[in-house]
Amino acid sequence: AAPPPPGLPLALCRPFSNNKILVELDESSGVATMKFKSPPVNSLSLDFITEFCIGLEKLENNRECRGVIFTSAVPNIFSSGLDITEMCGKSMEHYAEFWRAVQEMWLRLYGSNMVTVAAVNGSSPAGGCLIALTCDYRIMVENPKFIIGLNEAQLGIVAPFWFKDTFVNTVGHRVAERSLQLGSLHSAAEALRLGIVDELVPEVKLQEKAAAVMAQWLALPDHARQLTKSMMRKAVLDRLVAHREEDVQNFVNFISKESIQKSLRMYMEMLKKKKS
Amino acid sequence: AAPPPPGLPLALCRPFSNNKILVELDESSGVATMKFKSPPVNSLSLDFITEFCIGLEKLENNRECRGVIFTSAVPNIFSSGLDITEMCGKSMEHYAEFWRAVQEMWLRLYGSNMVTVAAVNGSSPAGGCLIALTCDYRIMVENPKFIIGLNEAQLGIVAPFWFKDTFVNTVGHRVAERSLQLGSLHSAAEALRLGIVDELVPEVKLQEKAAAVMAQWLALPDHARQLTKSMMRKAVLDRLVAHREEDVQNFVNFISKESIQKSLRMYMEMLKKKKS
Amino acid sequence: AAPPPPGLPLALCRPFSNNKILVELDESSGVATMKFKSPPVNSLSLDFITEFCIGLEKLENNRECRGVIFTSAVPNIFSSGLDITEMCGKSMEHYAEFWRAVQEMWLRLYGSNMVTVAAVNGSSPAGGCLIALTCDYRIMVENPKFIIGLNEAQLGIVAPFWFKDTFVNTVGHRVAERSLQLGSLHSAAEALRLGIVDELVPEVKLQEKAAAVMAQWLALPDHARQLTKSMMRKAVLDRLVAHREEDVQNFVNFISKESIQKSLRMYMEMLKKKKS
Repeated sequence: AAPPPPGLPLALCRPFSNNKILVELDESSGVATMKFKSPPVNSLSLDFITEFCIGLEKLENNRECRGVIFTSAVPNIFSSGLDITEMCGKSMEHYAEFWRAVQEMWLRLYGSNMVTVAAVNGSSPAGGCLIALTCDYRIMVENPKFIIGLNEAQLGIVAPFWFKDTFVNTVGHRVAERSLQLGSLHSAAEALRLGIVDELVPEVKLQEKAAAVMAQWLALPDHARQLTKSMMRKAVLDRLVAHREEDVQNFVNFISKESIQKSLRMYMEMLKKKKS
Repeated sequence: AAPPPPGLPLALCRPFSNNKILVELDESSGVATMKFKSPPVNSLSLDFITEFCIGLEKLENNRECRGVIFTSAVPNIFSSGLDITEMCGKSMEHYAEFWRAVQEMWLRLYGSNMVTVAAVNGSSPAGGCLIALTCDYRIMVENPKFIIGLNEAQLGIVAPFWFKDTFVNTVGHRVAERSLQLGSLHSAAEALRLGIVDELVPEVKLQEKAAAVMAQWLALPDHARQLTKSMMRKAVLDRLVAHREEDVQNFVNFISKESIQKSLRMYMEMLKKKKS
Repeated sequence: AAPPPPGLPLALCRPFSNNKILVELDESSGVATMKFKSPPVNSLSLDFITEFCIGLEKLENNRECRGVIFTSAVPNIFSSGLDITEMCGKSMEHYAEFWRAVQEMWLRLYGSNMVTVAAVNGSSPAGGCLIALTCDYRIMVENPKFIIGLNEAQLGIVAPFWFKDTFVNTVGHRVAERSLQLGSLHSAAEALRLGIVDELVPEVKLQEKAAAVMAQWLALPDHARQLTKSMMRKAVLDRLVAHREEDVQNFVNFISKESIQKSLRMYMEMLKKKKS
């Protein structure tokens, strides 16, 4: 793969657990798979995100690797999104560190020079949906139980502007406006209809389909494809780069409000009860 | 409802007739209805708009009110749009005052913190369509006689950029470009297909459906929903706020041209003949 | 037609062959036809583009002419796009001159005050597709062999930002992102589904349909229609005007790279073999 786009900082260099994502590179095809294996729900903890960014950076810098498929090793869930425990009852410094990592993940994914394909084999709310939205192509398993969407509003929080920009670039302004305000979680069929995903397949066909789509995208000359991708996404990427620290401060101020902390605690209680 | 967004001026404080809109607030649900009852066609005269803005501001400042449904008490017409008599044969000062009121109406509607639902129970050309477009959701009666669209070009005039921005945010650039240039008035079925409205219902189901949609939107926490709505609409709202006086001057200069005045007089003659 | 938009330079004043485009003006309807007759594939050579710009300027300045239909006199091809021989093995000065002509063509077409209708009666890759995209309305012959799209990436080159802007304004961000990265050439049926063209007709009905569509657009008052068109397209037109020389330099630097020259030579070899 080509060198990463300039202006993006290096991967965070803090110690982290290194077993939440399985990375496999098929050197014959130049296609890597990043398989999320952080049960129970592949939540995007600081550890997960750090491992994700470092893994992605390694692939980006590996000349043998031209594309990545993202999928889950946990049944029924692609990723449940940002780990709420990272946003609840922690210090301002922790919130800031966490948010910078989330920004970093998005900047690397949305700006990746590699072809990125989401093979969505389970539900994918909030940050899980964001990972799919940053990809070049989204294939979802046509299971009526699997849902996808940016449901932040349901939790009493607000998707940041760059989640919104990514969503608008994918589904247009009107679908984004309605779906974000309602915090909608869409069935796979509805996600296809709205353009949130590009294609549905039976679960048994998912890996085969992802490989076929990847081959189609890799048939193009890398250089022309990368410049075209950058042309399409640069305005939105630049917007976060220009407002990154401001966005961190907004997040920290918002999330540390007592009213928001209370909502999140209630939401976590609800999740715990559901489980037991 | 939350306080109105900063930067919007207070409602105009001129004397006006106060019987063109019926406002009812159901305190149990927190939902108000603004019912247009200005026969024959609910045209948006300066009086109507002033009453509309003051009514809306009162609801916005009323903590008991979280949502508004807009509908018509006049059969077969939602609103015929801006009152042409306000734009024809009057003074420059009058044109300016009228246009500031139209801007004010749009700024309050498109930027409202409340959930806004248009229950479009009749035809809705020009400014009538604009009111619908500013809402969070549009339900239209599936009557083949009812039409909707921004048909300004048919009259020889041009929709202002903020009508256009609202339209583009709803239906996308291409549909807006074609529909605005042709000054199209679309049937309800076509309006649904193009995304001008979100749903069609039989007339007898309209109020029930509007209440159900409102309940769905009110199920979300107000604060998160309002911040999300603002994030989606801020760029377009800010644009008019930044160019408000310039836009007034453009309107006054354009509308007071003799060629435009002549078109409007001819159009009014045609309407009068149609009636008799 | 009204005078051309200010800020656009006069047509290039170099000698050129004057037989690549047949221009006919029907004075009764005010509708001109520009028929491309530059076999074998109506490629957009510097000569073709110069003739095109001068022809278009004459119509724009002719008060009898209110609309133009673009179509091809060469069977099975609308236009094959930019002439690769103009971009291969020539001097930097030539590349710059050629690119300024391409910009000029786009500025005049996308900003035309006349109603413009593309009657696409053959395949229309790259620059051929661009001509269609700049029009107010696109009708394509429903022949399964005819394809259309901005396939630059297939050749290892990148569509300039103003091709991209025109495409996004027509089909939205997501369709453009995918189609441009894959350099897709779409069948007529798919082009209709994606919004690249507005309508399909059997070949025998094409001219009749184009005339009917033109009559529909000409039914609107010119002044209101032109101001509306300008409002929709101004942002994108202004962007190239503001970055015109920078865009020329980018093109010249890119196209004169040895790697790009090599791709283009290979592509031309392939085309020659195909022919023989």
